[in-house]
Amino acid sequence: MEIRKLRMGMVGGGKNAFIGAVHRMAASMDGQIELCCGALSSDPVKAKESGELLSLPPHRIYSNFQEMMVHESELPADERMHFVSIVTPNVAHFEPAMLALEHGFHVILEKPMTFSLKEAELLQKKVNETGLLLGVTYTYSAYPMVKQARQLVQDGKLGHIRKIMVEYPQGWLSTLIEEKSALAAWRTDPERGGLSSCMGDIGTHAAHLAEYISGIKITKVCADLRIVVEGRRLEDDGNVLLGFENGATGVLSASQVAAGEENALKIRVYGEKAGLEWNQQDPNTLLLKWLNEPAQTYRAGQSYLCPMAQHNTRLPAGHPEGYIEAFANIYKNFASTIRAKLNGVQPSEAILDFPTVNDGMRGMKFIETVIASGQSDQKWTMM
Amino acid sequence: MEIRKLRMGMVGGGKNAFIGAVHRMAASMDGQIELCCGALSSDPVKAKESGELLSLPPHRIYSNFQEMMVHESELPADERMHFVSIVTPNVAHFEPAMLALEHGFHVILEKPMTFSLKEAELLQKKVNETGLLLGVTYTYSAYPMVKQARQLVQDGKLGHIRKIMVEYPQGWLSTLIEEKSALAAWRTDPERGGLSSCMGDIGTHAAHLAEYISGIKITKVCADLRIVVEGRRLEDDGNVLLGFENGATGVLSASQVAAGEENALKIRVYGEKAGLEWNQQDPNTLLLKWLNEPAQTYRAGQSYLCPMAQHNTRLPAGHPEGYIEAFANIYKNFASTIRAKLNGVQPSEAILDFPTVNDGMRGMKFIETVIASGQSDQKWTMM
Amino acid sequence: MEIRKLRMGMVGGGKNAFIGAVHRMAASMDGQIELCCGALSSDPVKAKESGELLSLPPHRIYSNFQEMMVHESELPADERMHFVSIVTPNVAHFEPAMLALEHGFHVILEKPMTFSLKEAELLQKKVNETGLLLGVTYTYSAYPMVKQARQLVQDGKLGHIRKIMVEYPQGWLSTLIEEKSALAAWRTDPERGGLSSCMGDIGTHAAHLAEYISGIKITKVCADLRIVVEGRRLEDDGNVLLGFENGATGVLSASQVAAGEENALKIRVYGEKAGLEWNQQDPNTLLLKWLNEPAQTYRAGQSYLCPMAQHNTRLPAGHPEGYIEAFANIYKNFASTIRAKLNGVQPSEAILDFPTVNDGMRGMKFIETVIASGQSDQKWTMM
Amino acid sequence: MEIRKLRMGMVGGGKNAFIGAVHRMAASMDGQIELCCGALSSDPVKAKESGELLSLPPHRIYSNFQEMMVHESELPADERMHFVSIVTPNVAHFEPAMLALEHGFHVILEKPMTFSLKEAELLQKKVNETGLLLGVTYTYSAYPMVKQARQLVQDGKLGHIRKIMVEYPQGWLSTLIEEKSALAAWRTDPERGGLSSCMGDIGTHAAHLAEYISGIKITKVCADLRIVVEGRRLEDDGNVLLGFENGATGVLSASQVAAGEENALKIRVYGEKAGLEWNQQDPNTLLLKWLNEPAQTYRAGQSYLCPMAQHNTRLPAGHPEGYIEAFANIYKNFASTIRAKLNGVQPSEAILDFPTVNDGMRGMKFIETVIASGQSDQKWTMM
Repeated sequence: MEIRKLRMGMVGGGKNAFIGAVHRMAASMDGQIELCCGALSSDPVKAKESGELLSLPPHRIYSNFQEMMVHESELPADERMHFVSIVTPNVAHFEPAMLALEHGFHVILEKPMTFSLKEAELLQKKVNETGLLLGVTYTYSAYPMVKQARQLVQDGKLGHIRKIMVEYPQGWLSTLIEEKSALAAWRTDPERGGLSSCMGDIGTHAAHLAEYISGIKITKVCADLRIVVEGRRLEDDGNVLLGFENGATGVLSASQVAAGEENALKIRVYGEKAGLEWNQQDPNTLLLKWLNEPAQTYRAGQSYLCPMAQHNTRLPAGHPEGYIEAFANIYKNFASTIRAKLNGVQPSEAILDFPTVNDGMRGMKFIETVIASGQSDQKWTMM
Repeated sequence: MEIRKLRMGMVGGGKNAFIGAVHRMAASMDGQIELCCGALSSDPVKAKESGELLSLPPHRIYSNFQEMMVHESELPADERMHFVSIVTPNVAHFEPAMLALEHGFHVILEKPMTFSLKEAELLQKKVNETGLLLGVTYTYSAYPMVKQARQLVQDGKLGHIRKIMVEYPQGWLSTLIEEKSALAAWRTDPERGGLSSCMGDIGTHAAHLAEYISGIKITKVCADLRIVVEGRRLEDDGNVLLGFENGATGVLSASQVAAGEENALKIRVYGEKAGLEWNQQDPNTLLLKWLNEPAQTYRAGQSYLCPMAQHNTRLPAGHPEGYIEAFANIYKNFASTIRAKLNGVQPSEAILDFPTVNDGMRGMKFIETVIASGQSDQKWTMM
Repeated sequence: MEIRKLRMGMVGGGKNAFIGAVHRMAASMDGQIELCCGALSSDPVKAKESGELLSLPPHRIYSNFQEMMVHESELPADERMHFVSIVTPNVAHFEPAMLALEHGFHVILEKPMTFSLKEAELLQKKVNETGLLLGVTYTYSAYPMVKQARQLVQDGKLGHIRKIMVEYPQGWLSTLIEEKSALAAWRTDPERGGLSSCMGDIGTHAAHLAEYISGIKITKVCADLRIVVEGRRLEDDGNVLLGFENGATGVLSASQVAAGEENALKIRVYGEKAGLEWNQQDPNTLLLKWLNEPAQTYRAGQSYLCPMAQHNTRLPAGHPEGYIEAFANIYKNFASTIRAKLNGVQPSEAILDFPTVNDGMRGMKFIETVIASGQSDQKWTMM
Repeated sequence: MEIRKLRMGMVGGGKNAFIGAVHRMAASMDGQIELCCGALSSDPVKAKESGELLSLPPHRIYSNFQEMMVHESELPADERMHFVSIVTPNVAHFEPAMLALEHGFHVILEKPMTFSLKEAELLQKKVNETGLLLGVTYTYSAYPMVKQARQLVQDGKLGHIRKIMVEYPQGWLSTLIEEKSALAAWRTDPERGGLSSCMGDIGTHAAHLAEYISGIKITKVCADLRIVVEGRRLEDDGNVLLGFENGATGVLSASQVAAGEENALKIRVYGEKAGLEWNQQDPNTLLLKWLNEPAQTYRAGQSYLCPMAQHNTRLPAGHPEGYIEAFANIYKNFASTIRAKLNGVQPSEAILDFPTVNDGMRGMKFIETVIASGQSDQKWTMM
């Protein structure tokens, strides 16, 4: 019988966790995934309470991810989870992911994929060995107008790409809120967040977006990174000159201390013939600016969009879709690919279009290169 | 034991139906509602296929709503649906809604609530008799920034309200697409859509929004309605002068033939001291314009918003929420109110804030008054 | 010898007068007009001081317009003024204008052209008899992107025009500032402003713009006018349903009590194939929205614009031109037409494109019709 | 007798010259300056024709600037020019400026002030010796909302400045138009434009704006400069990391090959408490974004603006002023300062607020430092 709905387990994301709730909303949106079990907190009491709030069956509320992987893998195939979603702080990505892969489960992971590039390489190796899927939630590349932007570049509408400006200003860490905010605390803690705060949390999104839309790779960086807020332990601001494989140049600027900014990821890509602009806070609009013609405004939900943009849209034009819908696109495509495999069908190009372990690797490479550049007196550091 | 998750049945919304899918996404978003049964199409074959696609248990895929109401009411209390969502064309709202109420089920209905004002009155009477809940999806009033707008008015920030401008231009019916589009076909068909196309489908949203935000009622209208596209059977454009109970005046303009517009619902409310502006296509922004101070931009997800706005938000500022999230707010509040009742708890003001049978009645009153005004030579028609 | 620079006299516009200073800036911008004389105030002392501040020669600083017309007409042809600019309150438009025409001077007048329709008819008659030029500063139609909008309609890009929405909200009269503000005082005084404040001061701009861009005439109106601020003597707010000669409908809404609005004149014109939108506060941008294609943004200064738009532009794209430049376009075209006549050259279509006595007449007709409609219980009043 | 109107001579700016015409419009706008003479072209025939078109008296149409300085200095004081405006290509700034100063004339110069830093130093020395005024048209700092921005920083509204993002993308040199466009030709010609095209023509504006608003100086740069269009002789694109004296960092990005961009100078300044944003293409708006309050939109012409902003505004709010008005502010303040001196009055702070020889020097320093950094492998070059 054809498999329609997939069962998802979750590691992390207990009550009050921001990103775990987003993952669950995204997973459930299209009616193709149901949450079947969880190891929702490293605190067993909280794990239990969180599971009950989510109406999970008591025997599938696990105290830790090790228990979860073992027990789930012993359940009958038509009962056990199909994949696990891991939404813990960076330091706790690798172990459950590796264990899940070892037990035969597909994995979906928050970005950055791991704590270190070394861990990323191990995951990549394991994915290649097992043939399992590993998705990474580089959410912003899942917006329909980002798909359209990528298509316009691929279709040559911009001509040769010359310059890429990508920026990601946030202001939420403008003061030292680490004591009041758990989200702030682990992100700026070298033991839990990793080498980087600003570049690891948001710079990596910007870099992924630039490469995803343009189809060209960053090959060198020149980074100026700073801890702006006194007492903070990791950098909260950075500006990076970029060089791309095709000779294009650019700037990536990210900040967690840009007072008054919310989540203002924005990208501009300029080619010989045209420039495009996309702003995450107005995600259903894509500007295409021509050399000697009126600029065009592409809008989500319109019939003139490319198939990939339409595939990742649910509503007619003028009915705004947002962040949760973009997130849901990753889950939908990830789950559709698993389902295709389970049903013995070849996954289409459209459903295969989600960030994988290779994107996760690339992100870790970016983070480590940028941090190295920030410490160097030389202008350029190769990536 | 405390009831957490509610079971929903659906009437209409079979495969390819636009709004039914939206209702399901909205209902499932917050993990509090699960679809348990459906009479998804008036065509039994399509009803069956649609139910299977949604992974409904075969015995709860019903051929028609009568069968559904009867069978569900015979199921044990911990199995049968808690409420029914009705997403059929206007002409088929009343019968399933009345039958559901007669069988003790709460009801959630698409707007306009009924085919006629007469039907609306009967539903209102039945709701009052039974004490059951009837929600109506006036979606636009469920956006967080609309809640904030209403609060600002209630707090007296604008002073006495003087003028309200509300507009709802769409362009999708600029040509006679009735033969190609099922959505267009029934909306412009007097036998299925009712007295009105433009005012019934979108004008009623605009009127609801104006009254919801301002807290004052429309008391008279002067309407100029037209069939613009030759061959169409109901009006597809209209401009209406408004008078409000407090002496304020205004304009409501709606169109389905405003070429190039998507779903550009926009409202401006002016008081003695300030004016506010909200645009559905940029829903996370609310402008507050002061007489002699810089204008302020309120943004969804910010900590300075009123509790009601925060209650209807899921994400931090800068992570756009959209139409499905607004829709989900109605489902969340509706379901939370049912659950509170089931659990013997007094529903809070926040969860009671969804459009009810009274809003549905008011909408039907608006439609019938505007149509009458459109046919009158007198300037004003009282509402 | 070819005449290059024209000499202008001014009636009104003494020190502290807002609009007189604007006229002078506009007139001088293109180096084709010099101020040679003035009767700058009805108060002779102020007239003298104002003339000295403007470095006028003492013998051409007149105490009143009668003196000015007589003396100037007695000067040698290569010395006397070519035309007179009249920038007094409405009540003082007709007499100096008529006297100037009688003495053979061309005239440029602020809008509304006169105090009453009757006066307008007399001026029109005199202009027709004398063959002199009378320009009226309907400034907003002189922006380059308004020229472009008109051209797009004329070129049939929008197809048959179906609906026109024009609005002009201001907030500066939200309180009773008549005692503090001379500008407010005369505009709201029936003895100096005329029949109307809101419709006469700004509604007439909106009506002119609608007819200018669309090329179709308003044939009927249904007006709801109000005095919103207690103690005011003329209406400060109004909403008007419009009917056009080709069957199109529309809304004109104007307000002087829309708290927080500045000078937000905006027009949208919808046709069968596309809609256009122009906003005076962002005057260098014109949106063209297509049915099933991406919307286009036309921008002032671009090479793709029509000749009429280019003729009324001074700077390359991205160098914003504003209100004074639009104003200067009227002066430039008006003066160029006079100069062409003086030099025996046929004026081109481009320089003839400024509002004339006929536009002034039409404006007075609009004001009187709208006021009549506001007092009627019938829906429609013919214009 | 009090001197009211100043006489201006012009070097360069013959017919078809873009920037010369802008200077003349700007100078004449406020009725305080009249063009009295000119050496309008290095081609004597064109100089003569251009002078006639401007209705200059024949004996003050000079064949070259040397002749002009000599003859003008021999005229009686109440006839000869008060100052000279020099609007030639960069290579021809220094000589006429120096000669004018030597003959006792004040000077206003296009930016960049000179061809080389060396020349700039000589001018600065001469200005200091003579006590004459030398103004430089860094136009963008003359917009009223830029004055407001500077004031907000000075008032401490933003707190300590942390980050400055300034960008200036243009697209007009996206193709090799040097043969068709005289403007393009000299700007990209090392013999006429100098060391730099992109940084010299527009980067210097961006740097000036950043320092002017923030009140802090750039102390180091890390530049990545490129010739993007094949066959071009000077760089047409550049990205620069910035370090400021107070420890703030930033990015300056400028481009002449950002396809589809017009003149999109934009600056954002972030402090501890707030961030501000200003965009030259929407110049009458200034955004002030607060950490935990709604953002505010300051608008030109409003009564709540600081005196310096009001001093540089001519119109009420909502009547857009643009580039020519900003330009005119420099002329107005420059001329007012001269006039104050002539009339023996102490110039006010407001009229002294125009870019001087020191700003011109700073601009040349910036250009030379950025070019040096572009050629260096070291990350930072000190400025």
